[in-house]
Amino acid sequence: MPKAHLTRAVKFSAAHRYHNPMWSPERNEQEFGACTNEHGHGHTYRCLVTVGGPVAEDTSMVISVGQRYDILGQEVTQRLDHKHLNLDVPDFNYGKTVPTAEALAVYIWDKVAAQLPNGVALDRVRVEENSDLFADYYGTP
Amino acid sequence: MPKAHLTRAVKFSAAHRYHNPMWSPERNEQEFGACTNEHGHGHTYRCLVTVGGPVAEDTSMVISVGQRYDILGQEVTQRLDHKHLNLDVPDFNYGKTVPTAEALAVYIWDKVAAQLPNGVALDRVRVEENSDLFADYYGTP
Amino acid sequence: MPKAHLTRAVKFSAAHRYHNPMWSPERNEQEFGACTNEHGHGHTYRCLVTVGGPVAEDTSMVISVGQRYDILGQEVTQRLDHKHLNLDVPDFNYGKTVPTAEALAVYIWDKVAAQLPNGVALDRVRVEENSDLFADYYGTP
Amino acid sequence: MPKAHLTRAVKFSAAHRYHNPMWSPERNEQEFGACTNEHGHGHTYRCLVTVGGPVAEDTSMVISVGQRYDILGQEVTQRLDHKHLNLDVPDFNYGKTVPTAEALAVYIWDKVAAQLPNGVALDRVRVEENSDLFADYYGTP
Amino acid sequence: MPKAHLTRAVKFSAAHRYHNPMWSPERNEQEFGACTNEHGHGHTYRCLVTVGGPVAEDTSMVISVGQRYDILGQEVTQRLDHKHLNLDVPDFNYGKTVPTAEALAVYIWDKVAAQLPNGVALDRVRVEENSDLFADYYGTP
Amino acid sequence: MPKAHLTRAVKFSAAHRYHNPMWSPERNEQEFGACTNEHGHGHTYRCLVTVGGPVAEDTSMVISVGQRYDILGQEVTQRLDHKHLNLDVPDFNYGKTVPTAEALAVYIWDKVAAQLPNGVALDRVRVEENSDLFADYYGTP
Repeated sequence: MPKAHLTRAVKFSAAHRYHNPMWSPERNEQEFGACTNEHGHGHTYRCLVTVGGPVAEDTSMVISVGQRYDILGQEVTQRLDHKHLNLDVPDFNYGKTVPTAEALAVYIWDKVAAQLPNGVALDRVRVEENSDLFADYYGTP
Repeated sequence: MPKAHLTRAVKFSAAHRYHNPMWSPERNEQEFGACTNEHGHGHTYRCLVTVGGPVAEDTSMVISVGQRYDILGQEVTQRLDHKHLNLDVPDFNYGKTVPTAEALAVYIWDKVAAQLPNGVALDRVRVEENSDLFADYYGTP
Repeated sequence: MPKAHLTRAVKFSAAHRYHNPMWSPERNEQEFGACTNEHGHGHTYRCLVTVGGPVAEDTSMVISVGQRYDILGQEVTQRLDHKHLNLDVPDFNYGKTVPTAEALAVYIWDKVAAQLPNGVALDRVRVEENSDLFADYYGTP
Repeated sequence: MPKAHLTRAVKFSAAHRYHNPMWSPERNEQEFGACTNEHGHGHTYRCLVTVGGPVAEDTSMVISVGQRYDILGQEVTQRLDHKHLNLDVPDFNYGKTVPTAEALAVYIWDKVAAQLPNGVALDRVRVEENSDLFADYYGTP
Repeated sequence: MPKAHLTRAVKFSAAHRYHNPMWSPERNEQEFGACTNEHGHGHTYRCLVTVGGPVAEDTSMVISVGQRYDILGQEVTQRLDHKHLNLDVPDFNYGKTVPTAEALAVYIWDKVAAQLPNGVALDRVRVEENSDLFADYYGTP
Repeated sequence: MPKAHLTRAVKFSAAHRYHNPMWSPERNEQEFGACTNEHGHGHTYRCLVTVGGPVAEDTSMVISVGQRYDILGQEVTQRLDHKHLNLDVPDFNYGKTVPTAEALAVYIWDKVAAQLPNGVALDRVRVEENSDLFADYYGTP
């Protein structure tokens, strides 16, 4: 049974702000520029989740049609779509983690990995702020 | 001299919220769904501005290279990029206009039209929230 | 109240075959080439529907958020997605209309136009077989 | 018989230089900036040609499959692909027309219009230097 | 001589159906949903083939211009374009393999790998049903 | 601290010619086809640079916002945009290296790698001639 990898992409629309509350406004501005504007800005994010495993003989699939959609809907769309990431998503509340593309990739990895069926590995989570800027996370070795 | 039309696109990243302050929270939610979430969400907007006019004989252009960039930088990027549209842009302050794609197209039309050189007409402003949803404005007849 | 235009795109995956049953196999092949292969081929179609009307003062929208999605889901996705157009869609059954991009645009126009609320006009239906080939229909003048 | 519009896109890879030989080097640089660099630069152009006409009853098409491809191959690809527009294409030889997107749209219009079959009108020629900058030409009214 | 990797993409338009003939209609529908509709549906597939090897000193290429095109034309376009995968392609005939994106990637791998010149390795085959769903195959380790 | 990877893309417009001065015109044409036309042709290139490293705790970033832009602007845009690669870029002068996508990826790798801050690794340089043809370079192992 050959091993293959399947990628599904979903979009979510969210606001965020780059801001470290331990820092002065000046240092935030120096580090983050316009990204630290007080009320935030936003993106049409695109998230690509890649899973890998043996191609099942009876379906020729790595993961079933239903599972592909349910997991991303539940772990990405429901948690992040139409949110202000700093204010509406507990893991990114001010004082914790700056919601960069890198941090979002790690966040989604943890949520999705916990839901995958046996025998299906999580290979990569990619989070695109736009088509010209994106972060990849491959988990911890 | 033939007449042609030139389109330039720029992106801007902004947060917004669909909310009519004259309405109850229930009516806002009924009309706008998740788009009325309190802290807003966001998009990587793409704005396409089309201008038209005679193709100049000495440059083969409708509008000079420099002007194309200056006007969009000044009227679109500086006003809207890395902003929360409801809170940072005067025309959309709560109580005035809901910052939909339609309203943004009208807003940008007014700003850009005021800056075009003589002989160059504004044909269309398109504002995309994403590649699958966009508004066009052609001015008032 | 300014008048604006809003476009929504949806994808649908369908099979089709170019075949005129009044013609000999030779003439079908001469006219349609590989597109007339017996069992059909397919496309990830993209359909863009543009509507126009006054921007409502209380919502800044041409058409409500809910209506945008319901009409396309009901008239495009449910009718055409995951179908063999020649065999599963009555209007295109063999002996009637060849399901080209042009014919699909006219078909969708008729279905969508019948569902639009008062005061909202149907401006254009675009059907893309891929990003390099598409048909537009603007209705009958 | 409804009337529809069909668009086909083709790419071509070409070099060009913005340069008016009647002007001093300084004026060329002031007007054209880096686009006037001596040896030229280049683009992966994309050209979209839109034709319109009645949808034929026996084919459901505005123009036959074969004609769509032949005309663009002959009039766009053969003339412009893998060329230096200023040096290899007679109409743009130094001293004549600057090969801007606007000028290319007019050029392609003239070539394609001369080849269309009876009953098929040329609606628009679009020439994209990239997805964020393009010119449209609709012919002379 | 540095080692680099070159990717070429080709599109093909095909119909397919998810169906396991060993299963009841109910189980097929439970597993595959609308993808098991009797007459099939279709996609504008995009296939990306990546090869790797040393960059030749005299051409600065991993594989010659001609070979890039010939192999994909012969092994992907000719075999799969304008086909119903289940009915027209021997490897996917009912009773054998369900023509999923995963199975197509494995299929194309086997065909392309057999044609590569010495010193050029096949790195990856990607098959996209659309830009938001694709399978990767890297061969057997 | 998890390790992540960040990719930034920039475009540049350049002309180039495939030509080996050690070869006869016939052999150049046989090997390179239309790509060896005397005056060159061009592309809207897209370059994607991927860097990797630990996600910093105070910024949630692999590399600072400013550095992302400065390095690509200086090492890619300034060196390659609006150039004829064979004639304007020393490393590709006739008699040295043919400016293929592969050679450009190696070239950009060397320039960017020399500018990265400590702790940030260069993972990959991708150079796209268009969305259907691109080269990847991962450095020397």
